[in-house]
Amino acid sequence: MAAPVVVVQGASRGLGLEFCKQLLKWKTPAVVIATCRHPDACQELQALAARGPGTGTLSLLQLDVDREDDVRGAAERVAALFGGVDLMINCSAMLHPSGRGETSLRNVSAQGVMATVSTNTVGPLLMAKYFSPLLMKGGGAFGAQPPERSRQHRGLLVNMTARVGSIGDNALGGWYSYRLSKAALNMVTKTLSVELGRSSNNKVVCVSLHPGTVATDLSAPYHRGVPADRLFSPQHSVSLLLALIQTLSMEHTGGAYSWDGAPLPW
Amino acid sequence: MAAPVVVVQGASRGLGLEFCKQLLKWKTPAVVIATCRHPDACQELQALAARGPGTGTLSLLQLDVDREDDVRGAAERVAALFGGVDLMINCSAMLHPSGRGETSLRNVSAQGVMATVSTNTVGPLLMAKYFSPLLMKGGGAFGAQPPERSRQHRGLLVNMTARVGSIGDNALGGWYSYRLSKAALNMVTKTLSVELGRSSNNKVVCVSLHPGTVATDLSAPYHRGVPADRLFSPQHSVSLLLALIQTLSMEHTGGAYSWDGAPLPW
Ligand SMILES: NC(=O)c1ccc[n+]([C@@H]2O[C@H](COP(=O)([O-])OP(=O)(O)OC[C@H]3O[C@@H](n4cnc5c(N)ncnc54)[C@H](OP(=O)(O)O)[C@@H]3O)[C@@H](O)[C@H]2O)c1
Ligand SMILES: NC(=O)c1ccc[n+]([C@@H]2O[C@H](COP(=O)([O-])OP(=O)(O)OC[C@H]3O[C@@H](n4cnc5c(N)ncnc54)[C@H](OP(=O)(O)O)[C@@H]3O)[C@@H](O)[C@H]2O)c1
Repeated sequence: MAAPVVVVQGASRGLGLEFCKQLLKWKTPAVVIATCRHPDACQELQALAARGPGTGTLSLLQLDVDREDDVRGAAERVAALFGGVDLMINCSAMLHPSGRGETSLRNVSAQGVMATVSTNTVGPLLMAKYFSPLLMKGGGAFGAQPPERSRQHRGLLVNMTARVGSIGDNALGGWYSYRLSKAALNMVTKTLSVELGRSSNNKVVCVSLHPGTVATDLSAPYHRGVPADRLFSPQHSVSLLLALIQTLSMEHTGGAYSWDGAPLPW
Repeated sequence: MAAPVVVVQGASRGLGLEFCKQLLKWKTPAVVIATCRHPDACQELQALAARGPGTGTLSLLQLDVDREDDVRGAAERVAALFGGVDLMINCSAMLHPSGRGETSLRNVSAQGVMATVSTNTVGPLLMAKYFSPLLMKGGGAFGAQPPERSRQHRGLLVNMTARVGSIGDNALGGWYSYRLSKAALNMVTKTLSVELGRSSNNKVVCVSLHPGTVATDLSAPYHRGVPADRLFSPQHSVSLLLALIQTLSMEHTGGAYSWDGAPLPW
């Protein structure tokens, strides 16, 4: 059996980097393609790529998700090298170019919203545009495969969403750019699930997953307000998410789920 | 009692133009501020502005919702002229810069998505940023006012959404840009409702409204597929929407509703 192929987009730090680490130790050694904006500056990823056999293997590709040409180029490289992809995880995102969500309308600017949407929403959509042909040629190594062939999938696509991207769950307000970008991302996932769920034997499961509140750079300005038992380490969050991913099938496609598998309201 | 003041943003054609016409004949003659990108090219609006007394009055302001400076400038003009706004309706939108929604991922481009989001999502958010201080000084002339002062509102903000912007209702797929822009707009409305619902005596009701499928330029490429009794005229849609608006209060704030008042799922 060929090694499962995984693309982790936005792998330089935080959850993306942790996904790479844990997938390299996956029960079936995986081929991990880690993409990031500045591979030269990512010493941790370079060290992972340099490691010898015994674990999976890591390849590093340059990809700024704000640049459609980068996405196309990376997909061409992966197509030439591997032919198919079993799992793709879109991790890159920002709260806002300033690093802080807007606390009120006063902080809202067109530029800030547009930059956030470009990275958080359009980026994952472009990834799907160029990588979905590869996911349709995956070996189905991730997720749960029901016995009936017609309900099985070839690939699995994960967009990292956030609970604050749930419209129904929004009681606090604020964070305009981030909230609207993630609500739009949930729509992207749902729309993708229709297009990539039609074919009789090339299905791709598409889901949005919320990792919990995780101690990374993204959430750093807000850690003080989070009770310690609710602030996950990246290790903990990613191990929960990978376990959850292994339970997913076409029955879940289009949905948004929290780290514990609970559906998120739109 | 002062005349109610209404801002109709995106008034050159379609539903926006029809809102202006019907509001000019409103039971209490209204002051209608119609904004559009190219006032010089809008003969219908100019004719409405030139009409003498007997109906409400119409003022025409230049405003391209893709330009934050235009939005700020228009709000300054309205503040100087009228001091407050009772009702603001954000009408401008596009399906996609090409005029047609994407039928599959192949048609998706970063540029197309970003242009659609700028007009359909960021535009209404910028309108709220600059006009909300005016809506908080409105006279509460639109919507339903409960007897308790603490539950009354000063202004009413309508963002025109679309049923295809409902994530939960999306069974057909396609139309990536338009769908995600309207899902994001529904999040904008919900987030605004929190910020503009806090104050004890300056509340603004914020809702997203779906006008039905209406015979305008926007939907023109798709009219052939719509059964005749489901394709509304702009006159019919706007009269239903204005009647619905008159039933809205702070109980509805943040929600998305169809022309018949039925809540839309997120
Ligand atoms: N942490 C949380 O509490 C939390 C909660 C809910 C959801 N999430 C979601 O989980 C995902 C991972 O977040 P995180 O906490 O790991 O964030 P993080 O530590 O801030 O990492 C963000 C990553 O995105 C990358 N990135 C930003 N812009 C990019 C671009 N244009 N092209 C390519 N990569 C880009 C960054 O790369 P550079 O190193 O090049 O900047 C970095 O690798 C995000 O989607 C986030 O919204 C996180
Ligand atoms: N028609 C339907 O079946 C339908 C269904 C669901 C929802 N809706 C929603 O209803 C609203 C009105 O749609 P409609 O059918 O009346 O559309 P329409 O006839 O195509 O009119 C669109 C309007 O938006 C304006 N506009 C576009 N870009 C703009 C910008 N950057 N700045 C300012 N104005 C801009 C146009 O002005 P120019 O003349 O300058 O181009 C025009 O006045 C939209 O939000 C639409 O999404 C319509």
